[in-house]
Amino acid sequence: MSSPTALIAIDWGTTSARAYRLDAAGAIVEARAAPLGIAQVDAGRFGEALARLLGDWQDLAVPRIACGMIGSRQGWVEAPYLACPAALSALAQGLTAVPGDRLLVVPGLRTRDATGMPDVMRGEETQVVGAAADALAPALFVLPGTHSKWVCFEGGRVVDFVTYMTGELWHVLLQHSILGRLAVAPADRDRVATPAFLRGVARGGDHDSLLHDIFGARTQALLGELAGSDVADWLSGLLIGREIAAARQWAQALGLDAAQVHVVGDDALVARYAAAFGACDVAVVHADARAAAFGLWRIAVQADLISS
Amino acid sequence: MSSPTALIAIDWGTTSARAYRLDAAGAIVEARAAPLGIAQVDAGRFGEALARLLGDWQDLAVPRIACGMIGSRQGWVEAPYLACPAALSALAQGLTAVPGDRLLVVPGLRTRDATGMPDVMRGEETQVVGAAADALAPALFVLPGTHSKWVCFEGGRVVDFVTYMTGELWHVLLQHSILGRLAVAPADRDRVATPAFLRGVARGGDHDSLLHDIFGARTQALLGELAGSDVADWLSGLLIGREIAAARQWAQALGLDAAQVHVVGDDALVARYAAAFGACDVAVVHADARAAAFGLWRIAVQADLISS
Repeated sequence: MSSPTALIAIDWGTTSARAYRLDAAGAIVEARAAPLGIAQVDAGRFGEALARLLGDWQDLAVPRIACGMIGSRQGWVEAPYLACPAALSALAQGLTAVPGDRLLVVPGLRTRDATGMPDVMRGEETQVVGAAADALAPALFVLPGTHSKWVCFEGGRVVDFVTYMTGELWHVLLQHSILGRLAVAPADRDRVATPAFLRGVARGGDHDSLLHDIFGARTQALLGELAGSDVADWLSGLLIGREIAAARQWAQALGLDAAQVHVVGDDALVARYAAAFGACDVAVVHADARAAAFGLWRIAVQADLISS
Repeated sequence: MSSPTALIAIDWGTTSARAYRLDAAGAIVEARAAPLGIAQVDAGRFGEALARLLGDWQDLAVPRIACGMIGSRQGWVEAPYLACPAALSALAQGLTAVPGDRLLVVPGLRTRDATGMPDVMRGEETQVVGAAADALAPALFVLPGTHSKWVCFEGGRVVDFVTYMTGELWHVLLQHSILGRLAVAPADRDRVATPAFLRGVARGGDHDSLLHDIFGARTQALLGELAGSDVADWLSGLLIGREIAAARQWAQALGLDAAQVHVVGDDALVARYAAAFGACDVAVVHADARAAAFGLWRIAVQADLISS
């Protein structure tokens, strides 16, 4: 190992785990990933999974810190949710030690909207802390995915957030509902911003009747107005367009202008959302997809785990 | 058979088929049902399925008429969709004969909203014609189910309709998404109007952010604010409450007052919707669940199949 290691940071989610070795300046020296998410590991065997993920990093006598579902009730140790607004210092103070290991786990966050409905997240708070760095001005972060999160960050604090079940709804409707029957896989699965996708975005943005509109994926295909190979794209656009419209209202209620968003995620999904944002005249700042590693670094520094 | 038979009427859907024997006054003399919906019958074997359904009625030399998915592209013969508004006479003129059988099939209906989005139905038009009978005043019919239909009927015509994927969305979310993980089956599966259901109805009625609100079935359960045995009820209430709020807006745009609705469907589902309508101050008229048989009768009379 060429660079000295100061921290091992782990983004440990439901399906996969990513480990990063960072140097004393907080730069990523090396990264490793394994399909060892908490859904893939039997309870009681997280120690073994960590050893497999780290390999020869096991011998490094440096602090270890993790975020994500590893801190959930189904994970290795439960790191209780902190209430919003939550500052970096609160995340650092809320670190929970894994019994019998030197791994520290970042707490998740919870919030409650004006009507009292609760919301939770685990892992995204760390990504936002990493992507926001030292910014103090209000900023809106979007973390698209199975359960898309929109996060308002201001003055070094996670002020509030909201979840949309966009990705999972798209998946279950195509895989398990009648909407999938007329859908055929497109020739190029990586394409983004197709006319069908953008048409869906416009529909979702302009109408709030999702319970009716999703049925349009069937009726349009049935009447020959949507090709089978466009059904999945149109439905994706509809749901993402609806998410963006609903989230902009949410942001405005917080006094935030949603003319610009910071998007954190894997390349394919970010490209899809960027196309939708483009159609809605929202400017996109692409955040580093390794934001979790930088967030874990900042929390570790705040917790005095690293002398920097 | 004690009463003379004038018509055999068949409500032939996706999962089941119901046959009725009606006398010369249009009264139901006898009914038979079988799990012989079009999804249960191999293509090319509908004749055999009909023979099994009818049994000794096969020998009756009377007209036969059917409605529902049997007239779809996946059915026995495709009876093309008619455009709305559609009068009883149009349904009668649109009857499509099954090649090699004397069965006549009622066409489905199609419509298009102000934005151009199409919608379709098959079978519900016949139920509404049966439930409305000779009424000329504007009336709003609700046919709850997998794909709930709201139908505006006036002056003897189906003026317009709209579909909500309420039932199917509830099913796929509970069976195939993360929302089902914390749900446990309630002790009494037939209960309706539980506090959790009514709380969901209120939420769905007051908020149009379904993509976010469905996630509340998880977060509330996770935080101990919703019992596992209440998750399915709350989610059902949320979706039905949202359907009712969206459909009332749709009805108002058509100039219809949604203070009273006619509900057609099976008893358990009608009871569930009636509880939701009660919470929304909408008066409910319970229509006869055998409305399809009466609708088929009226279409057959209009088509001069029966000398009455």
